Amino acid sequence: MRMLSEANGSIAGAGALLKILRDGQARTRAELVQLTGLARSTLGQRLDALLSQQWIVPTEEAISSGGRPAVAFTFNRGARIALAADLGATHARVAITDLGTEVLAERADEVPIDRGPVETLTWLQHTFEEMLAETGHTRDQICGIGVGLPGPVEHSSGRPVNPPIMPGWDGFPVPEWLGERFGAPVLVDNDVNIMALGEHWAARPEADHLIFVKIGTGIGCGIISDRHLHRGAQGAAGDIGHIQVASATDIVCRCGNLGCLEAVASGAAMSARLSADGVEAADSRDVVRLVRGGNTQAVQLIRQAGREIGDVLASIVNFFNPSVIVVGGDIAEAGEQILAGLREVIYSRSLPLATQHLTITASELSDRAGVIGAAVMVIEHALAPGTVDQAVTRD
Amino acid sequence: MRMLSEANGSIAGAGALLKILRDGQARTRAELVQLTGLARSTLGQRLDALLSQQWIVPTEEAISSGGRPAVAFTFNRGARIALAADLGATHARVAITDLGTEVLAERADEVPIDRGPVETLTWLQHTFEEMLAETGHTRDQICGIGVGLPGPVEHSSGRPVNPPIMPGWDGFPVPEWLGERFGAPVLVDNDVNIMALGEHWAARPEADHLIFVKIGTGIGCGIISDRHLHRGAQGAAGDIGHIQVASATDIVCRCGNLGCLEAVASGAAMSARLSADGVEAADSRDVVRLVRGGNTQAVQLIRQAGREIGDVLASIVNFFNPSVIVVGGDIAEAGEQILAGLREVIYSRSLPLATQHLTITASELSDRAGVIGAAVMVIEHALAPGTVDQAVTRD
Repeated sequence: MRMLSEANGSIAGAGALLKILRDGQARTRAELVQLTGLARSTLGQRLDALLSQQWIVPTEEAISSGGRPAVAFTFNRGARIALAADLGATHARVAITDLGTEVLAERADEVPIDRGPVETLTWLQHTFEEMLAETGHTRDQICGIGVGLPGPVEHSSGRPVNPPIMPGWDGFPVPEWLGERFGAPVLVDNDVNIMALGEHWAARPEADHLIFVKIGTGIGCGIISDRHLHRGAQGAAGDIGHIQVASATDIVCRCGNLGCLEAVASGAAMSARLSADGVEAADSRDVVRLVRGGNTQAVQLIRQAGREIGDVLASIVNFFNPSVIVVGGDIAEAGEQILAGLREVIYSRSLPLATQHLTITASELSDRAGVIGAAVMVIEHALAPGTVDQAVTRD
Repeated sequence: MRMLSEANGSIAGAGALLKILRDGQARTRAELVQLTGLARSTLGQRLDALLSQQWIVPTEEAISSGGRPAVAFTFNRGARIALAADLGATHARVAITDLGTEVLAERADEVPIDRGPVETLTWLQHTFEEMLAETGHTRDQICGIGVGLPGPVEHSSGRPVNPPIMPGWDGFPVPEWLGERFGAPVLVDNDVNIMALGEHWAARPEADHLIFVKIGTGIGCGIISDRHLHRGAQGAAGDIGHIQVASATDIVCRCGNLGCLEAVASGAAMSARLSADGVEAADSRDVVRLVRGGNTQAVQLIRQAGREIGDVLASIVNFFNPSVIVVGGDIAEAGEQILAGLREVIYSRSLPLATQHLTITASELSDRAGVIGAAVMVIEHALAPGTVDQAVTRD
């Protein structure tokens, strides 16, 4: 195995150039010299590398200011594909996208993550293989594989770190396992991080500071700071599910602490509470179904969960001053019922300066945020390799 | 008036180059071509611009690999000076530094910020003028002026925004006022932001994610995310003084909300509590004096304040996953008494993954963090102008 940056050495230096080209606008050599500040000879070498890999293509000749027409270049979004997977606690979504993150094929299935890494990843391998066959793509078209997992992931290695709901996954070499089978670089991250990345890319590209809150079986958030994913010192940033909430200091959480947000306001906590009250609810989706059906207990519970989550987010708004808070995950399907409680507390508890232009909204991408984000992770890596070490290719 | 980027147009493009040179190491043209990727002709133009302003100087000729010796260039930290001011609620610190942030002259004085902008800034103007005369510097040597203020500042304009303890300052054009008097670019920011910048620069340059908590008359923090200051969407990030703490929901804060951290754990709150109990304490410094003298009430109070602040920081550690938390401000002078309470709660309430390598420490720069940070802000701006619009020079 070798690193992508070695394998594609000539492409590496082309990243900045491609970032300029990928808005879809055709540009001439002269325009690119001006935009990059590169010497004409250096630019020429980089364009040649990109052309040979078909990442860019020459277009119809542009009209120059007199003399012979100049050749222009455009980004070729069909040149490669990204394989993307969003593996949740109980269900998985898999997609193939082009280099513009347009979804070419998609699958969703029930895949319990607690079956362990080999069984889960073997299923993923077969699913990717079937989808490649269906769409008529070959392995050498894959620019990379992006995977989201429902637990902490060490960013540099792409391996899960003591993930609480993923028995058998601790330290498992996910990038190597998939990389050997597909001969492509593999990037792995926490599922909420890739959701934040996907939502920011596709729905909120103008937001400098965004928080994506996932409310499902657990509760977590992905953080965009200054248009970049903030992973924190140990890749543990965004783990808000175990922040203590004042109203529930007598409830024991599975982490061993008392009164964690997740122990009172997650889909798992709500379905457990409803079951204890004699209302049939196995998981987050049952809770949403009950709320939509107007079940009074479920409605009261979700409204209160919104307030508890809002209490934690109110502190985060004071600390972080985001421009957008996006709410996703299964429970977000309950729509305004969860947003109302959340907004109520944030606007009451956060500072006016921090909330005056704050948008609090449901995810636009909904359950697709994860796979789009996984594709974004892969494509951004391909455009600027070397920033992450976990990606590997087969020798 | 005109923008710095216009005034020094030729220097603007030289920023990246200067960043490479300012580690103090001498480098030849050939080395700089390799490090920057710039064409030799472009590099030549940029070196000429820097040489003409004396930001760099040619050194003794380096030995090249045969043939005639090559000229090397080094950063000239004495080429310019930065004027730096850290204006607190009641006292101010002012410094002149060289381009390496070494302090050449320094003053500290009692200057109540509530006297309003004209009186305060006039004092600052005269202080700067006296210090320039003392150190034998002239106005044309000033590369910029950096000012920290104890309230929210709009980053783009450098103007205070509804600062609660600064009557008369709302919207006051601080950069223009000082810029007209000194003919130099002026950058203004919140005092805690510049403290975070100073501490990160001088004492913790290796930390990717740092939080600087100032505990004084009020409580606030400055945030370094991925080695850059995180100011948030409205420049309001770090305002943790008004996060609600569970233990004190019956105490009214000056902001109008109940149970704010600042209303129970700040220097002002502690001195008020001690006074009410018949112990003489006018401000933060009196609280620290009492703690150092072993006053039981003061010791209990500061220990509990540490726990309350720790409770808020425990949530922030889960959310942000910093590598370092630095505690500064007057109350930090109480040392371990405040850090003990803080650590107690953070290690008990934050996730093990987020605390395993977390450092919680008192500020190394202490009351100099602000002026060093103000100088860093000015020098970084001079190296990469155009990123901030607030800086102005006299035409």
